[in-house]
Amino acid sequence: MLSAGVQLPLRLRSSFTISSLIRGSRSTPCVRSIAASRRFHRPACLREQQSPELPSFLEAYKKAVEFPSATHDFESFFSQAEPNAEVVLHGYLGHRSDLSKKLSFVRLTDPTMKHSLQVVAFAKNEAFEQLKSLNVHSPVAVRGTVQKKKAKPTEGDKPAEDTWELALKEIHPLNDFPKEIIMTPETVFSPEHRYLQLRSDAQLRDALRFRAKAHNICKQELEQSQPPFTEIETPLLFKSTPEGAREFLVPTRRAGLAYALPQSPQQYKQILMASGLPRYFQFARCFRDEDLRADRQPEFTQLDLEMSFAKGEDVMRTVEGVIRRLWSNLMKDPAPEGPLRRVPYQEVMARYGSDKPDTRYGMEIIKIDHLLPVDLVGKISDLNDPIVEAFKLEGNENNPAETHQFISQFLDSPAGAPFNSNPDGGPGVFVYNGKQPLCGLQPFGFEAAEQVEELLDPDHGDLIILQARPRAPFSGGSTPIGDLRRALHAFAVSSGFKSAPTGFDFMWVVDFPLFSPSSDSEPGQGGAAGLSSTHHPFTAPKTAADVDLLLTDPSKAVADHYDLVVNGVELGGGSRRIHDAAVQEFIFRDILQMPAERLGDFSHLLDALRAGCPPHAGLALGFDRLVAVMLGKESVRDVIAFPKTGKGGDDAMVGAPTPMTAQALETYHLQLLK
Amino acid sequence: MLSAGVQLPLRLRSSFTISSLIRGSRSTPCVRSIAASRRFHRPACLREQQSPELPSFLEAYKKAVEFPSATHDFESFFSQAEPNAEVVLHGYLGHRSDLSKKLSFVRLTDPTMKHSLQVVAFAKNEAFEQLKSLNVHSPVAVRGTVQKKKAKPTEGDKPAEDTWELALKEIHPLNDFPKEIIMTPETVFSPEHRYLQLRSDAQLRDALRFRAKAHNICKQELEQSQPPFTEIETPLLFKSTPEGAREFLVPTRRAGLAYALPQSPQQYKQILMASGLPRYFQFARCFRDEDLRADRQPEFTQLDLEMSFAKGEDVMRTVEGVIRRLWSNLMKDPAPEGPLRRVPYQEVMARYGSDKPDTRYGMEIIKIDHLLPVDLVGKISDLNDPIVEAFKLEGNENNPAETHQFISQFLDSPAGAPFNSNPDGGPGVFVYNGKQPLCGLQPFGFEAAEQVEELLDPDHGDLIILQARPRAPFSGGSTPIGDLRRALHAFAVSSGFKSAPTGFDFMWVVDFPLFSPSSDSEPGQGGAAGLSSTHHPFTAPKTAADVDLLLTDPSKAVADHYDLVVNGVELGGGSRRIHDAAVQEFIFRDILQMPAERLGDFSHLLDALRAGCPPHAGLALGFDRLVAVMLGKESVRDVIAFPKTGKGGDDAMVGAPTPMTAQALETYHLQLLK
Repeated sequence: MLSAGVQLPLRLRSSFTISSLIRGSRSTPCVRSIAASRRFHRPACLREQQSPELPSFLEAYKKAVEFPSATHDFESFFSQAEPNAEVVLHGYLGHRSDLSKKLSFVRLTDPTMKHSLQVVAFAKNEAFEQLKSLNVHSPVAVRGTVQKKKAKPTEGDKPAEDTWELALKEIHPLNDFPKEIIMTPETVFSPEHRYLQLRSDAQLRDALRFRAKAHNICKQELEQSQPPFTEIETPLLFKSTPEGAREFLVPTRRAGLAYALPQSPQQYKQILMASGLPRYFQFARCFRDEDLRADRQPEFTQLDLEMSFAKGEDVMRTVEGVIRRLWSNLMKDPAPEGPLRRVPYQEVMARYGSDKPDTRYGMEIIKIDHLLPVDLVGKISDLNDPIVEAFKLEGNENNPAETHQFISQFLDSPAGAPFNSNPDGGPGVFVYNGKQPLCGLQPFGFEAAEQVEELLDPDHGDLIILQARPRAPFSGGSTPIGDLRRALHAFAVSSGFKSAPTGFDFMWVVDFPLFSPSSDSEPGQGGAAGLSSTHHPFTAPKTAADVDLLLTDPSKAVADHYDLVVNGVELGGGSRRIHDAAVQEFIFRDILQMPAERLGDFSHLLDALRAGCPPHAGLALGFDRLVAVMLGKESVRDVIAFPKTGKGGDDAMVGAPTPMTAQALETYHLQLLK
Repeated sequence: MLSAGVQLPLRLRSSFTISSLIRGSRSTPCVRSIAASRRFHRPACLREQQSPELPSFLEAYKKAVEFPSATHDFESFFSQAEPNAEVVLHGYLGHRSDLSKKLSFVRLTDPTMKHSLQVVAFAKNEAFEQLKSLNVHSPVAVRGTVQKKKAKPTEGDKPAEDTWELALKEIHPLNDFPKEIIMTPETVFSPEHRYLQLRSDAQLRDALRFRAKAHNICKQELEQSQPPFTEIETPLLFKSTPEGAREFLVPTRRAGLAYALPQSPQQYKQILMASGLPRYFQFARCFRDEDLRADRQPEFTQLDLEMSFAKGEDVMRTVEGVIRRLWSNLMKDPAPEGPLRRVPYQEVMARYGSDKPDTRYGMEIIKIDHLLPVDLVGKISDLNDPIVEAFKLEGNENNPAETHQFISQFLDSPAGAPFNSNPDGGPGVFVYNGKQPLCGLQPFGFEAAEQVEELLDPDHGDLIILQARPRAPFSGGSTPIGDLRRALHAFAVSSGFKSAPTGFDFMWVVDFPLFSPSSDSEPGQGGAAGLSSTHHPFTAPKTAADVDLLLTDPSKAVADHYDLVVNGVELGGGSRRIHDAAVQEFIFRDILQMPAERLGDFSHLLDALRAGCPPHAGLALGFDRLVAVMLGKESVRDVIAFPKTGKGGDDAMVGAPTPMTAQALETYHLQLLK
């Protein structure tokens, strides 16, 4: 954190001014003198080794070291409490109420921070004064006598915790919560104080407990299936292979050699399929050296699985079982019944302009360029012969003026700006208005207006959006109109024009193209063909006909590749794999045109396939994202104990990454590039 | 594997000679021509784009792609089989027996490789010829008619699998197992063919399944305790801090900055204790950049846990519950009852010369230098005033000659050599022999011989070993006589002189010194004091008296540090932690004398402690090692799917680590040191 360069709002660093006033020789292992300027410890100068005066912080610590063990946790206390019994409880102090000079109340919150109990302190007891010297939130051990509660319930009491209170006999301070830190359930702490956020924010702690439960339910489903899946750990010190994403490297002490952290256990799990272990799963830590987004971390956890003698359908059925068990055990919403629907990539791209659409709010896209007069197309786009698509957003209260206002706000907002500046033409906006000529669709001309009315069935006050794009097959994750549909709906919800959709609409998006045009901006698979594997280069063609297309037109081949999508979020994706070494090598070498040395990086995989590997298929669910979706969280950061927060992947709390020392660089035979 | 430089015993690489004979332009995404020289695929030269002739490997793959789904797994088949039903089963072919030209038998092993079934093929069916063309071990889908078994049981039948057989109707080859690979249950494959080892070695696959079960049982015990432990994932992209071991670094794209892979989740879990999450556990991947040993891998898994408001005793009781549940669920040996015994470090070092002794075979050590005549001490060691210790190894059959032969063999063996060349003096060897003057103890003189007899109570033919060491308090993991005791016993077992001990003798070794003299050979904690923390610098002193010793003589302070030991193996270790920031800083700064910049690396931890962190304690069990001990394996490699095998931490199978490319180095602003 010293290196993070962030201003601390809290004076938590004060003890860094501690210094030894009189210090023994650095070489003597025995410390002769010490002084501390910590705020609640007076400095102590010690002259005699024989009978040193203990600095006050060590005196305080001696007492904390020998604190009494708890006789009960709070749950067993509440179920077993008997009047007049003496008990010891551990917990955190709440705010103290001094009812008189002789009587104070304080609530004690248990270590789980789920229960609390009223403690009564009387002036006749010496613990009374000690209690008064302690700060709120400080951890304590409390010895007291159980009694039926006499006082009125204080705020925050739970019925079950309202029966008993403790008459204070002894209180052992275990540490001190600084007065300077203001901690309420509403306080938002900076990322570097994540421990304070966790401690003050019950929802965040509950999210971590929920995550652990979700983990267990996934495990149960897989381990109880027949034949059962086996959880197998695979190495994290892997090697660099051109799968797609940029990998973190881990240099070794052998000059020039490095491991790579895996972007997924893909190759190891395929090798397990060649190893006579037919059903594998793992909660696998994965790594991608990419820039941070709200839903992406440089390290993340995926529920990774693979099945041999299996096709994509087998994997989808298995994962549906996982989803069904998660929802029926942990969610109020009903678990999805039956097989989830399978929607081909071409269809979701056409209907929603996205390969991970949120299908809950309609606004389906239709292609209308064949209906439009040439002059209207020319107004919408400078492209020659573009595809023009349209969708409808229903207005509220049949009020075109309100709709006008909404769309103007959107187009003027930062969310709308990128659509306005689309070089292929901005959105064509029409408000359907029964009081205007051709209901506001004049630019369509009579014939097209009628056909568009028939297709979109607009009501008075509805919004109709047109968007052009170049005439080309679908590729990638979205189209301009798909992005517009998503952004416009999000703006409608955030601005209150529409209410947020509820529930969960799951689907499998299937039949992705096996290959997509390469993008220069990604590290890619290193091939020279101008094509990249859409999923990864291990993905199998779907049918025998797609195998045929490998030779004639690989860009048309369909993959046995399936993404699980819910509410506009891709929960995970998987595929059947190529289990035949010759075919895999053909894809690497002849289709992707990887150079020989990159191809050599995969020789272990090819060898394993060649050793009689059975057909296999698998999937990885983004576990952080799955939990975030279940809890309705915007960001995976809300379901990770210690997320990276900075754009560069900083752990602001511990202050990572840090500068490599000269010594460390030398150990790894490295130096910084000048 | 190309880079591993290992000769391949198997010709698995042959398909790397595949090359395109006629190749289209590199820039056309459409592949016009292809040729394969793979051994069972004839090369095919394709001239026409319009109607290319499919290479034979693609033809074969088309069939494999559309293989029929299994109607049953073998377990459900065995429970539901009905005569004359048609079923499809998946599995691997066994060796075929051709009973006549018209009748063949072959066993089909299921994908789990736990069950098998007899398949009968008759010449009248076309599958008959196809079966004959397939290699043993090849994966297939088989369609057949269920019938009661007629033929005599063949070798390897299990009773439950002996009732039914399948009359072959169709067979779908799914891949081809190369004839060149000889695979029997006894074959030992080189590490680069780990998949073949896994596939051929049922014990190895069972070890992985056992490991997964052990994982679940540990989880259950912790999650069902009250209050429950919560499994929480902590980051692997951490930062470099001077805890003790050398850390792997992960350079980032920001020049000079790197993450470090954690040697344990120690700091994050302590911060969780400051975060209101009172009981944490995790199966945590940990990393140490150290040279490989049989029981150490550069990456390993530990069952990591931490409890707040707890002392060492609380952790030990929790872990005893884990061990008890593991043993009672998974082991034939009885689960250890009651609390495991606690043995102080000073005691195990004195009695066994080791801080992780195998206590099952006696041979306890006694200190005898005060009894010995000066001239005998002088013969044993050149040291001035050494400590001399002794133990007894019981001979067999009261036969001194046999004992003589055994000890001579040991001392002449590589195992004995290091003890002979001990600069402080080699072992003093005496065989107790009732037929010799003073029973062979003449060099002791009458008085000492009598006292040694009384202490060791030797019988005719027993071996008595003396060993000197410098007069100094115990430190580190073992003494020379402790190492000798261990090595001598191991040799006695391996040479057949003694039988191997059985059962499990658990203990907690407790009361370790808080600090030990620094060793120059380790990266250490970077302090200048000549002292290092024995466990790690977060370990708490045990009692108030030990807190006092921090000022007067820290080397005498005892830690609340406990190691779980069984049969000479340290299963794990833990400690109570310092939960007070001022005390922790005092240890860092004034006792260990860390430089300010290293101390700054821990500021996140100090800040978290300062925010009212409760007392806490924890432990990490080496999970690989635990499983290896439970299964009686010598090496953790036998319980890890893909272990590193080379001394330098190579993954021989995938061929990691690999050279960093110029591009990768540049991405991370690095260059190799010249």
